[in-house]
Amino acid sequence: MKELKQISVIGMGLLGGSVSLAILRCLPGVRVVGYSHRPATRKKAKSLGAAHKIVDDIPKSVTATDLVIVATPICAFQQTFKAIKDSLPDGCIVTDVGSTKVLPHRWAAETLPATVYYVGSHPIAGSEQRGIEFASDNLFDQAHCVLTRTAKTDVGAIRTLKKFWSSLGCSVNVMEAGEHDRILANVSHTPHVVAAALINANRTDELKLAGKGFADTSRIASGPPNIWADVLLTNAANVSRSIDRVINELSKLQGAIDKGKKKRIEKLLEHARQKRSAMLKYKVDRRELIS
Amino acid sequence: MKELKQISVIGMGLLGGSVSLAILRCLPGVRVVGYSHRPATRKKAKSLGAAHKIVDDIPKSVTATDLVIVATPICAFQQTFKAIKDSLPDGCIVTDVGSTKVLPHRWAAETLPATVYYVGSHPIAGSEQRGIEFASDNLFDQAHCVLTRTAKTDVGAIRTLKKFWSSLGCSVNVMEAGEHDRILANVSHTPHVVAAALINANRTDELKLAGKGFADTSRIASGPPNIWADVLLTNAANVSRSIDRVINELSKLQGAIDKGKKKRIEKLLEHARQKRSAMLKYKVDRRELIS
Repeated sequence: MKELKQISVIGMGLLGGSVSLAILRCLPGVRVVGYSHRPATRKKAKSLGAAHKIVDDIPKSVTATDLVIVATPICAFQQTFKAIKDSLPDGCIVTDVGSTKVLPHRWAAETLPATVYYVGSHPIAGSEQRGIEFASDNLFDQAHCVLTRTAKTDVGAIRTLKKFWSSLGCSVNVMEAGEHDRILANVSHTPHVVAAALINANRTDELKLAGKGFADTSRIASGPPNIWADVLLTNAANVSRSIDRVINELSKLQGAIDKGKKKRIEKLLEHARQKRSAMLKYKVDRRELIS
Repeated sequence: MKELKQISVIGMGLLGGSVSLAILRCLPGVRVVGYSHRPATRKKAKSLGAAHKIVDDIPKSVTATDLVIVATPICAFQQTFKAIKDSLPDGCIVTDVGSTKVLPHRWAAETLPATVYYVGSHPIAGSEQRGIEFASDNLFDQAHCVLTRTAKTDVGAIRTLKKFWSSLGCSVNVMEAGEHDRILANVSHTPHVVAAALINANRTDELKLAGKGFADTSRIASGPPNIWADVLLTNAANVSRSIDRVINELSKLQGAIDKGKKKRIEKLLEHARQKRSAMLKYKVDRRELIS
């Protein structure tokens, strides 16, 4: 398994900053180099001590590195791969922390040299905040991290990344990139669309009467629009199909309400309640959620 | 203003139990009588000390009382009104804690004697749990409570209930019952339908990859199906219109995703983000939510 002596983090927002801080805490022998194209972010990263070195030169950030973690918005991945490709040492592993994986795998295959290994990473952690000022060195404690692969992905690189994310506190599994994108459209990307639609369907003055339930239901809609637009656009077909399914389930409930069918409404609500209980039990048993 | 010496709480679930416990804490001079038709609930209520007296006879629970608070599922209100109507003292105030208000006002007008006063109450507080074992004497601290009226509602009774709910920790406003039901369909009842539809659109095995965001978005769907079926059925027309609006907003986002319109997606997400910020600011400023 590859030994990680230096890790480069490209993009120092909430996720990149949290990865850097978690490496400093969990892997104290590893040197961390951080890159951001924004002077303000570099300044904040320096003042937070988020990496051993914060640089403004993207090729230089990856020379002599063992692992590159790209933590920019997804639509900047390809440009990032182009900017670093000639500076990557042979045998280096490149990964990212984006929420969709099929296109990043394709961009990596098209752009990165054959002398490096690309594996997708999706640590399922984050918050509705943005910026390194909200970064936390324990963001990955008891989170789940999906590693993604295609038929060509190097097994040794996967093994190294499994160990890396485990060191940061994650439980890790490996999936085909296409399967990942299909499932995450259902359980993460579409729920974001639903939360936004729910708010947009309401008038601001009427939201004054919303309670804690609504605040929770809509929380994820406070996430950064640019990041989420990239997620939705790079997983468009899956998300669109998943929105169709939600609309279909809404119509089922609406039909039962329109027709005054109490037993039918109760059955649909009970179905949801039981599914959610099963989900929580699974998560709590694995300590991925606090009960 | 009417002095409250005795209050009767009919139905000792999460809400009824919490009202009783809150009265014991906040209005120590008032005698509280609790009624439940279930022996198991009466036993739990007694062991929790949830009222001065727990009774199994519904007419007797309201003789010599100044205020009756009906806390059963909504579809049992009319039956409850019938069961107590001949035992209510003259000048007694009757209210309830249901989430819809037009039909309760109608049932009260049809059933209760002209010698008592009905006002609707909707304390916007609760949880996804059910049963008196989850009751809490501080459930109403910093909650909002809507009182509802029609053209015939007694002003003195409203004044008494304003003071009562304020004593329990609520901020209170008064609305027409129809206006209440229309707005609550948008900000509470339809969000419940949306959360249930979102879960039902997903496969149980795939929910294993859901994160904390999904758990929050779907939390309210763990609420009791029988209670919520009553809410939806007694506000069917408003909820159905509100579901139409959510589907319309989902379709807008879906269209932008299908066509790859990044600016349009960002604009719709930003619109939701800003509306939610405004809502949170309003709530936090009024201390109805902890920031």
